[in-house]
Amino acid sequence: MNFKITGTGSYIPNITKKNSDFLNKSFIDDNGQEISIPNSETINKFSSITGIVERRYADIQMNSSDIGTQAAKNAIKNSEINPEELDYIICSHNFGDVNYGSNNYDMMPSLASRIKSNLKIKNPNSVCYDIICGCPGWIESMIQAKALISSKMASKCLIIAAETLSRVIDHHDRDSMIFGDGAGAAILEKKNEKGGIISHVSATHTFDGEKDLLFVGKSNNKKLKGKFIKMQGRKVYEFALKNVPQAMKNCLEIGNININDLKKIFIHQANKKMDDAIIKRFYKLYETPMPKNVMPMNIEHYGNSSVATVPTLFDEVIKNNKNGHSLNDGDIILFASVGAGMNINAISYQI
Amino acid sequence: MNFKITGTGSYIPNITKKNSDFLNKSFIDDNGQEISIPNSETINKFSSITGIVERRYADIQMNSSDIGTQAAKNAIKNSEINPEELDYIICSHNFGDVNYGSNNYDMMPSLASRIKSNLKIKNPNSVCYDIICGCPGWIESMIQAKALISSKMASKCLIIAAETLSRVIDHHDRDSMIFGDGAGAAILEKKNEKGGIISHVSATHTFDGEKDLLFVGKSNNKKLKGKFIKMQGRKVYEFALKNVPQAMKNCLEIGNININDLKKIFIHQANKKMDDAIIKRFYKLYETPMPKNVMPMNIEHYGNSSVATVPTLFDEVIKNNKNGHSLNDGDIILFASVGAGMNINAISYQI
Repeated sequence: MNFKITGTGSYIPNITKKNSDFLNKSFIDDNGQEISIPNSETINKFSSITGIVERRYADIQMNSSDIGTQAAKNAIKNSEINPEELDYIICSHNFGDVNYGSNNYDMMPSLASRIKSNLKIKNPNSVCYDIICGCPGWIESMIQAKALISSKMASKCLIIAAETLSRVIDHHDRDSMIFGDGAGAAILEKKNEKGGIISHVSATHTFDGEKDLLFVGKSNNKKLKGKFIKMQGRKVYEFALKNVPQAMKNCLEIGNININDLKKIFIHQANKKMDDAIIKRFYKLYETPMPKNVMPMNIEHYGNSSVATVPTLFDEVIKNNKNGHSLNDGDIILFASVGAGMNINAISYQI
Repeated sequence: MNFKITGTGSYIPNITKKNSDFLNKSFIDDNGQEISIPNSETINKFSSITGIVERRYADIQMNSSDIGTQAAKNAIKNSEINPEELDYIICSHNFGDVNYGSNNYDMMPSLASRIKSNLKIKNPNSVCYDIICGCPGWIESMIQAKALISSKMASKCLIIAAETLSRVIDHHDRDSMIFGDGAGAAILEKKNEKGGIISHVSATHTFDGEKDLLFVGKSNNKKLKGKFIKMQGRKVYEFALKNVPQAMKNCLEIGNININDLKKIFIHQANKKMDDAIIKRFYKLYETPMPKNVMPMNIEHYGNSSVATVPTLFDEVIKNNKNGHSLNDGDIILFASVGAGMNINAISYQI
């Protein structure tokens, strides 16, 4: 029995926010002090570290479940399955639906149920639930779908990632520039043909205060109410660099995969500098030079859309050879992510 | 390979809110009109339908993840496992942590990560995530743990349910009287000994607008901001009565279980009248009289604590013979739930 991705889809929101759109923001530091550095300088530094020049925001009338529905529709169309045959619909996110301007996180009913309703699927045996697992949520729900298929509880699963971080950013926090909105989806099916998921790893680090590296907290503008996505950027960087390369290596080892057979790495689009450093250290663990063109990226134009970055990037590369990256039958790839929890996971996969 | 519950735990919050504590509430209907019926009359009617005379609220400094931690500690102690051996920690809820008085739903990081941190578990291979699946979330995460064990991804799982509905009720809505806070937990392990999970069923109904039966919406007091738990009570009742008995029967049939061998039914403590009606109709499907003493209840004193009702009730019966209900080795029981999504699920289990 193999676990194959038979279709992918994504939804790229309409609104483009350029770095220059942040020029007039009133940035405040964690201590409530206005930042004296000119915004133009802040933005230049931000861009050179993160690689982000623009990000996408969802239309104000669209919610996470709406953009998730569009990604799901594209994945179903691409796989050519009958959606009534889906055994599970799993949606990963971290904030639920957040109505524009509301700061209310709403996940009752689950986003998976809302998406199933939008897709007009009748079959009650297509079971819906959401998972909350930080940015690695989509990879974690792929691992769950593998477990459901492996244990004969399912044959066809729809795995969606959807997030509208533009609704939960603190506009007074410079980190707000990192985040964007997006949705991606895939169909994972039981197949007898070659390829599919080879191995996976998952981990959650909490013992050394890691749960506070990415969290929901107050605005840097102490007068504002509500809660917003917050991170300790430097510590996230150090944590990721210390733990992600080894987790990726573990995943290849479990799969008996030779590093030289690895064609592409689809890593969570968190921050270009961090992703570059992770991949460099990963190859260093093998004492192997990092091959050119191994890491497709789309953070430059989409920003960090949390759970949605990996499925969106994979969808673009497998369908459209994004930025010259292409995939062929038999290619071995690695999905990897790190985020709130702190969670780390990876999947090795043969096309 | 069998899937056995080797320990259970629960946490009963300290604050008791009696029905009489609602006498001075200003109840308003869905249209924003003050309700003219005296509260004493409303409360009497409420009590006779739901069976609730009091409910528990968490101390104001405690959050869902805190009460979940207490339930988890009790389950670990009861199972006598080394918590460092846990492969997965799964927490079900629907609102995350909600600081008292805040109306902010916070699930970054996941409640499972917070609980793991509170439990001081070091092992990073003990993987944390939350699931959102309405009131059936705890049973659904037990089904997931079964899948993880069955597919050899796990041997020992900690499955927690935690909810503080007292923080998300609309104090102007009479339905607010139904809800309480609570937490329950269980350890599910791979075992070779007899017994354990026999069968399960899951379903999600969304095609006929069922996703709107339980939802997050505005206060009946149109002046108030924020979002609160809301339900269309009559429609929930009709939906449950139509679909839950058959789902329970399907679960027994998949497990080849004779109705006469069923010792106890642990059903989601939603509302006494509804639960009574479901069980009566369930036995009617078998044309069998409903046995006396088949359905333990604790809603009278705890209210409806969403995901937490089933594990809390099971913990009390298996440890303390709650209200004269007792369980013995070899007994066959049924867990069943219904709630937002609309999700329905059931597990048949042999002690």
